[in-house]
Amino acid sequence: MTERFTPTPADKFSFGLWTVGWQGRDPFGDATRPALDPTESVQHLAELGAYGVTFHDDDLIPFGSSDAEREGHIKRFRQALDTTGLVVPMVTTNLFTHPVFKDGGFTANDRDVRRYALRKTLRNLDLAAELGAKKFVAWGGREGAESGGAKDVRLALDRMKEGFDLLGEYVVSQGYDIKFAIEPKPNEPRGDILLPTVGHALAFIERLERPELYGVNPETGHEQMAGLNFPHAIAQALWAGKLFHIDLNGQHGTRYDQDLRFGAGDLRAAFWLVDLLESAGWDGSRHFDFKPPRTEDFDGVWASAAGCMRNYLILKERAASFRADPEVQEALRASRLDELAQPTAADGVTALLADRSAYEDFDVASAASRGMAFEHLDQLAMDHLLGAR
Amino acid sequence: MTERFTPTPADKFSFGLWTVGWQGRDPFGDATRPALDPTESVQHLAELGAYGVTFHDDDLIPFGSSDAEREGHIKRFRQALDTTGLVVPMVTTNLFTHPVFKDGGFTANDRDVRRYALRKTLRNLDLAAELGAKKFVAWGGREGAESGGAKDVRLALDRMKEGFDLLGEYVVSQGYDIKFAIEPKPNEPRGDILLPTVGHALAFIERLERPELYGVNPETGHEQMAGLNFPHAIAQALWAGKLFHIDLNGQHGTRYDQDLRFGAGDLRAAFWLVDLLESAGWDGSRHFDFKPPRTEDFDGVWASAAGCMRNYLILKERAASFRADPEVQEALRASRLDELAQPTAADGVTALLADRSAYEDFDVASAASRGMAFEHLDQLAMDHLLGAR
Amino acid sequence: MTERFTPTPADKFSFGLWTVGWQGRDPFGDATRPALDPTESVQHLAELGAYGVTFHDDDLIPFGSSDAEREGHIKRFRQALDTTGLVVPMVTTNLFTHPVFKDGGFTANDRDVRRYALRKTLRNLDLAAELGAKKFVAWGGREGAESGGAKDVRLALDRMKEGFDLLGEYVVSQGYDIKFAIEPKPNEPRGDILLPTVGHALAFIERLERPELYGVNPETGHEQMAGLNFPHAIAQALWAGKLFHIDLNGQHGTRYDQDLRFGAGDLRAAFWLVDLLESAGWDGSRHFDFKPPRTEDFDGVWASAAGCMRNYLILKERAASFRADPEVQEALRASRLDELAQPTAADGVTALLADRSAYEDFDVASAASRGMAFEHLDQLAMDHLLGAR
Amino acid sequence: MTERFTPTPADKFSFGLWTVGWQGRDPFGDATRPALDPTESVQHLAELGAYGVTFHDDDLIPFGSSDAEREGHIKRFRQALDTTGLVVPMVTTNLFTHPVFKDGGFTANDRDVRRYALRKTLRNLDLAAELGAKKFVAWGGREGAESGGAKDVRLALDRMKEGFDLLGEYVVSQGYDIKFAIEPKPNEPRGDILLPTVGHALAFIERLERPELYGVNPETGHEQMAGLNFPHAIAQALWAGKLFHIDLNGQHGTRYDQDLRFGAGDLRAAFWLVDLLESAGWDGSRHFDFKPPRTEDFDGVWASAAGCMRNYLILKERAASFRADPEVQEALRASRLDELAQPTAADGVTALLADRSAYEDFDVASAASRGMAFEHLDQLAMDHLLGAR
Repeated sequence: MTERFTPTPADKFSFGLWTVGWQGRDPFGDATRPALDPTESVQHLAELGAYGVTFHDDDLIPFGSSDAEREGHIKRFRQALDTTGLVVPMVTTNLFTHPVFKDGGFTANDRDVRRYALRKTLRNLDLAAELGAKKFVAWGGREGAESGGAKDVRLALDRMKEGFDLLGEYVVSQGYDIKFAIEPKPNEPRGDILLPTVGHALAFIERLERPELYGVNPETGHEQMAGLNFPHAIAQALWAGKLFHIDLNGQHGTRYDQDLRFGAGDLRAAFWLVDLLESAGWDGSRHFDFKPPRTEDFDGVWASAAGCMRNYLILKERAASFRADPEVQEALRASRLDELAQPTAADGVTALLADRSAYEDFDVASAASRGMAFEHLDQLAMDHLLGAR
Repeated sequence: MTERFTPTPADKFSFGLWTVGWQGRDPFGDATRPALDPTESVQHLAELGAYGVTFHDDDLIPFGSSDAEREGHIKRFRQALDTTGLVVPMVTTNLFTHPVFKDGGFTANDRDVRRYALRKTLRNLDLAAELGAKKFVAWGGREGAESGGAKDVRLALDRMKEGFDLLGEYVVSQGYDIKFAIEPKPNEPRGDILLPTVGHALAFIERLERPELYGVNPETGHEQMAGLNFPHAIAQALWAGKLFHIDLNGQHGTRYDQDLRFGAGDLRAAFWLVDLLESAGWDGSRHFDFKPPRTEDFDGVWASAAGCMRNYLILKERAASFRADPEVQEALRASRLDELAQPTAADGVTALLADRSAYEDFDVASAASRGMAFEHLDQLAMDHLLGAR
Repeated sequence: MTERFTPTPADKFSFGLWTVGWQGRDPFGDATRPALDPTESVQHLAELGAYGVTFHDDDLIPFGSSDAEREGHIKRFRQALDTTGLVVPMVTTNLFTHPVFKDGGFTANDRDVRRYALRKTLRNLDLAAELGAKKFVAWGGREGAESGGAKDVRLALDRMKEGFDLLGEYVVSQGYDIKFAIEPKPNEPRGDILLPTVGHALAFIERLERPELYGVNPETGHEQMAGLNFPHAIAQALWAGKLFHIDLNGQHGTRYDQDLRFGAGDLRAAFWLVDLLESAGWDGSRHFDFKPPRTEDFDGVWASAAGCMRNYLILKERAASFRADPEVQEALRASRLDELAQPTAADGVTALLADRSAYEDFDVASAASRGMAFEHLDQLAMDHLLGAR
Repeated sequence: MTERFTPTPADKFSFGLWTVGWQGRDPFGDATRPALDPTESVQHLAELGAYGVTFHDDDLIPFGSSDAEREGHIKRFRQALDTTGLVVPMVTTNLFTHPVFKDGGFTANDRDVRRYALRKTLRNLDLAAELGAKKFVAWGGREGAESGGAKDVRLALDRMKEGFDLLGEYVVSQGYDIKFAIEPKPNEPRGDILLPTVGHALAFIERLERPELYGVNPETGHEQMAGLNFPHAIAQALWAGKLFHIDLNGQHGTRYDQDLRFGAGDLRAAFWLVDLLESAGWDGSRHFDFKPPRTEDFDGVWASAAGCMRNYLILKERAASFRADPEVQEALRASRLDELAQPTAADGVTALLADRSAYEDFDVASAASRGMAFEHLDQLAMDHLLGAR
């Protein structure tokens, strides 16, 4: 394979322990791969060119471990990090696997479960701080319902707000340099999950006590499970100053959560996503949250992890060549992208109302007849994506 | 039909002129019905028991009308309102039918089109104020793109913000008692529309200069086109204090925008929606934004309009009987909905951390084994919905 | 609850052991319920009014059991059947849980896996015959692929045909009175599953050596995962003489396979389905293939099983009242359903061509202006469904 | 642009008159482009390198034309064909635009409408024969319903069968060398359309009197509107010997029918489709059924038509390089695609039952542990698609 698509730590690729470590258990099938020791994952990911590794508390420290076992797991993990140079940019909490969370964590109807969920999260925040993670992802996969009476959504949002506010209070009180990234998902494993899209999560954040501490962690497949345009969602998150982390993978539209390797699924959306992240100067991790298909053995696991990074790098090169192409720049002008950058009415409403050329004398028919030349532009993008120019 | 499901103005049902007036032109077919005079629509809707009528500027005043024609149309419409007693709770602007808006209104790449769109909207605001409308809906159906390079979404959001801020400035400067309700939609007629869901619109509003002037106008089918739970979206909008208007109709999931009469499509979601609106004391219009199928003649048009209201009233009765049923109240307690209403950690994070019963001594296994009893509760809801209790 | 909605064996309700026995393990969570002994399920289902129970081989006899263990399991199960009077109308084979089937059973790329899958199925056919089952369901949940190169679909269909032909040869050679019902599903657990809809399965059957032995086993949610109209699919299967079995449950559109209890999900489709099955005189089992949500304990499991049957009975009553209502019958005539029953051109093409009234003298405009009166008819259906007449 | 992606008639690209001639009228907007004279379309398409042009009767001869006008339109069109050398490989009938077809053509409840639809189709068959078309496409876009009572699907299928049988009788009686290709679509413009997928259409054909005369005309976007894998559908159609025509375009999953240019939408599926068509030696037209977005003027129209062909040619080159790559061939073997080509049990069921290695002595655990190596294979496909090898 071409040298130029070989990842290095400078590319800031990171992986969750639960991705390469996924054993292939699905709703209709048992595990197809044995458990993978976290240190082995760290070692392999480093060899492949990753710079970071992330985890849920229970990925690193099996649920129910004693304090001594916990320390042992953390110690061995730290050693692997030291040996490989990998960092931990993000940590997250598992509030979904254990049956105690079957009705949610922060929004479970049972108050004691909510308190337990918060305590589990607080403990994990300490670990995140200890390991130097700057981002703390919160995916509320069980915060939802299968039926209409089972959850009073307004009350549940009150509880969700209460939970996040309390976490915010805690990091401030502890002086932790950690920000929260809320990860939306529309459904699965619950029939409907609260904060189902990037938009709903962004809106929720604005009602928190310290909104500046919270942003979003959009995942490619989650937004696409709602049939939504993922680059558009990322653009809105960036526009709001709220893209705090990102989960990259692949998905085929409105169906179960596939967690394919990055590039699989909607390849064109992946191209526009990379174009956006690179154009916007995104300097966070390129974090992959995918599942190597259960058809694969460990060779396949590492092939798919490598594929995630390789595809990102290919798309990055193609996006750069697209933007640098003079014919593309001409096409962007022909489609008046430059005009979109101009204020519409910088002089304010009075001036606008006074401008007869804006309305009374506006030649609507003539304006209506202008072609936008988007198809030519999009074909240029296709050509660059396919390496056909 | 049963008397108790006969609408009266007290029920606050309203319809858009474009609903009963839809001629049945679709992407593959010509109109099946002649145009309907707005005054005739007003007359019929009043007879059916509606209290309000709404419109796009171009529904009332054909695009391109002279000022004199415009005044004539408005005058005749006012007379119909006076005769029938119908009110105009909401007005909206058509920025999508004319080819000049083919790339959008507020976010068209062409600056002159954006200025024209703003002027068209400002003029319509004057009319809204003149007719006493308190809500002004903005559906940006053409604000979007079919391909990734055609729209820089961050710039487009800048332009969208600029547009809405300018409108806000105008209503304040004019002293209009009007608030804006932004209507999200994921796609159709554009490949992807900006602010695709209730969440994205709620989030956008928070970045406006006068956020208090703006809320959302969710439409049943639009949120369901993204496979999302509509009552959940309404609950979040209510929670945020941002439900300013609502468009009720029917839809079968992720497909083209069907605009079926209310009750058709996802009936169970309609039940939970009415339950929510009534429980929350929603006092705005119950506004129907539907299209009588093009198979229908005018008898069918009025039958479908009547059906919208009838179905709402049936569901309202059923939701009330559900909430009043002692067995339901017991089932809600058995599902611990009362606990969801209690704060999780009112004493704050320090107290929570000090509470060993919350974590160290918490009997996880025991808590995990509790059933939530949601199926019994949901079957009770089904029984009430079906009138089977 | 009302007596008239209490099931009896005459209603022919059946359940899979794997439904009430589902332990609640999902892609993101561990089991929330202990295993349920098959005899206990039989006992409970009988008490609830079911008439039949079905199973995958591995539901009854854990994978890897010795012959002696196998006989023990079968014996105990037979005793439970004898005690309760429950019958086994259908048996099916698990070719999806064990990792050996990760790339499929009949269409796995590995020939030895295919042979093993066929042997496992043949053995299970013997058991089906022994227990008197007349239908043998085949769900090829692992017959598919996540990526385009992984499966040559034409070859895979060759293998699928080979497998089914061999099974057909076997039942004929053994003189078993068993027919096969192929169960389609579009995706999950594979990215794309072969024979994704009722249509694809019906078409496949026509290329088998003994097509008369094979029909379909449509599942509500599976067809709805493709956004398709389930009653329409059942109608086409009935029309083709190929509805051999049916799996009833609930689903919310294009998303993961929810397996909600019957009635949940698309209630209106459930109404039309029951109307169709009852109108068509369907005399097979009303088989529920659902999963009690993992939020439930065993009380909830039995409540949800009871709810499946109750909802069917309610809908059956409502469909009957709809069909019996004289106003409905008048509405059906007004919508010209009676004309649809008439041949279009019984005299053949020559007579049609000679009939000037059919074309040259046909008053197109007049015909085009006729309303179909479908909205009135549909509102009558809604009224009956809701018990509002 | 690179020479090697320039189309010639040998590539057998064809376009419908209604594609480049689409004026941009959509459910929410008026036409953005003037009508295009068919002869102009023929001229342009020939210049771009197409070999064929197709049409609905009403595309060529406006609905309601007199016989003389009709002859004039046909004559001018023939002259354009003669001048350019373009052929007419396929003709189709418009049974959806005029309001008379609002409830369908062959399955309208109104018998006189059904007779009119058949006559319109018969007349168009004569024209197809006259112009030398060998394929006659039938898209029943209005054959369906919005509500459950409006259509008795079994009766409607009787009428559909009657219609197609009559057409078959006619072409046989006339000695026309024409075959029918039925085009499935799940919904839009009807709420649910009969024969919603390739599978349902394939199954229907088997119940016709002369099944050999009928095949399918799958359209990329239509199958993808149901979330289905289009190459899989084409593979099943080829396997059944029933791919009679194909409509190529682009679509973004389960939403309204987008009719994007080929290559847009799901690019990876487009790659596998071209790989399949070329591997299978498909010798029919590569027919594009797309709509140039209404943002475009005529320059954009021709750019998008050119893009359809260019993208096909790029993908054809990439698929060829994929298949020719020795590393790919090795990867296919590593994934045991060669084993899929081998019969599973060529010796029959008795031999299979006698083979202890197939079951009793089969090492399940060992077989289960084999990796399928699909991820490596798929990454090689990605590399070829992207021109990154």
